Amino acid sequence: MALLFIAPDLEIPPYVDQLQALDPELDIRIWPEIGDADDIELALTWNHPLGELRNFKNLKCIASFGAGVDHILRDPNLPQGVQVTRVVQSSMPQFMSEFVILSALNYCRQFDIYKNDKVKKRWKPRIPLLARDICISIMGMGQLGADAATKLVQLGFTVSGWSRTPKTIPGVLSFAGDDALADFLSQANILICLLPLTSATKGILNRNTFEKLPPGAYLINVARGEHLVEKDFLDALECGHLSGACLDVFNIEPLPEDHPFWDHPNIMITPHISSLTDPKAVMPQILDNYHRIISGKPLLHVVDIERGY
Amino acid sequence: MALLFIAPDLEIPPYVDQLQALDPELDIRIWPEIGDADDIELALTWNHPLGELRNFKNLKCIASFGAGVDHILRDPNLPQGVQVTRVVQSSMPQFMSEFVILSALNYCRQFDIYKNDKVKKRWKPRIPLLARDICISIMGMGQLGADAATKLVQLGFTVSGWSRTPKTIPGVLSFAGDDALADFLSQANILICLLPLTSATKGILNRNTFEKLPPGAYLINVARGEHLVEKDFLDALECGHLSGACLDVFNIEPLPEDHPFWDHPNIMITPHISSLTDPKAVMPQILDNYHRIISGKPLLHVVDIERGY
Repeated sequence: MALLFIAPDLEIPPYVDQLQALDPELDIRIWPEIGDADDIELALTWNHPLGELRNFKNLKCIASFGAGVDHILRDPNLPQGVQVTRVVQSSMPQFMSEFVILSALNYCRQFDIYKNDKVKKRWKPRIPLLARDICISIMGMGQLGADAATKLVQLGFTVSGWSRTPKTIPGVLSFAGDDALADFLSQANILICLLPLTSATKGILNRNTFEKLPPGAYLINVARGEHLVEKDFLDALECGHLSGACLDVFNIEPLPEDHPFWDHPNIMITPHISSLTDPKAVMPQILDNYHRIISGKPLLHVVDIERGY
Repeated sequence: MALLFIAPDLEIPPYVDQLQALDPELDIRIWPEIGDADDIELALTWNHPLGELRNFKNLKCIASFGAGVDHILRDPNLPQGVQVTRVVQSSMPQFMSEFVILSALNYCRQFDIYKNDKVKKRWKPRIPLLARDICISIMGMGQLGADAATKLVQLGFTVSGWSRTPKTIPGVLSFAGDDALADFLSQANILICLLPLTSATKGILNRNTFEKLPPGAYLINVARGEHLVEKDFLDALECGHLSGACLDVFNIEPLPEDHPFWDHPNIMITPHISSLTDPKAVMPQILDNYHRIISGKPLLHVVDIERGY
């Protein structure tokens, strides 16, 4: 019996180290070095090559590296009858808030510009944007949005939130429902998308939305690539209405090499790491399910494949 | 009567805009376009060319752009008998804390690496350092250190502070005096220097200090360039004991073009902007002193030249 990592884009060693520290006897394989395919009973996956999981006839569990399993379920050749599991990470809001604060301050204090200056050995102080003068508007005020809002208020930003129903968070102005969206957007110097992806929110970062923002607004998308209408976004950057963006999620991941975002000077790109899976928190869950396979116990965190989560 | 900006390294327009908004009639000159030198009665300075202020025979006030006036007093040809003023900015701790938080998160979440990846169109998620696992150790627990420490604790970092006398700040472990320095340093994943520059602290960031840090520690210097022994620092980077640094202050500013810091991949350089002067807060003080010259009233925020502050 063996456990297979099949996550071509991820840096695997820290996860392997964590698993081996927990159980030095574990038979760990790392795709594409799979050894005897029949040994594999648990596959730990992130953006696996489609169809590849069919090769493991003794597979008992397809485990996601993350909370989401859309990257697994999109495989039309997923082996039938194999359970799919996800991981649960209570520290997710904390990790996400750290990323959101970094992205906002990185923009306000112009670190991208100073990094370019460094390459040119150019010493040129610039006037920063200060938290005190900036309104950060957060779309989506669930657990992640609420944690980020609270911490941004503590740093001195003006913060407002938009959600389906009104929320009460100290220091945060709440806007609720479609009727309030225009008012909410009109104050946003920095717009952060933390919405869940639903039929109602898909494509919500579009021309209409951008037009309601004040000139020079900055966008941070840490939700899903499908929230963003890429052409509308590039148009808004082109005409200067948006000053820039930090994007962590994309319609296609990994972002294709010929995608125009890579070369745009005002777009910061990170490879879907705003709430990356933490080995310490998550590998014990994987190991637990591995032992459950051995002892024939029910797996934990099993996903309802029909429902998708 | 006219006011002269003489600050070759600074981006002047935002300050001019702010002054003109306050007093549209003001006669503003920007060095080197000085017009009739005899008109100049107030010179607003930051790193002015040495000796240059001698050319203004009707000068009544040499005003610093910042809280410090060392950049003025180092001029051996400063005109005699002209008052030197500084500016007072209550929002300084807030601005400094924003910079310190940004520098720390920028390191933990590897934004420098992702920016390099973007240039190469490389999609490669990496395991981040998380605030929860990081101890930030702050040298200097005055007003600036205390504000930064409090906000870093709120973000989930472990924070300790080192100062001459013990300090009580909720959630922050206090180390006091020379005897406690080794223990303080031994826990520092990120070391932040916020010390005042005195004969006791000059060169404190040296080989002995670095050796007491855990391997892979990261340095943030936002105090003064003279705190850092550059050769010891480069040696510690070279052997991998320090993983990198964010430096905002330097022995010579602007940092000379041939300085080795510019080309080092693990050094982030910013041009002394961690607590840059805020036009909105500071230009009213300059204008006030300008009107005081006109009406013959005593100037505000005058520096004792003998004492140096």
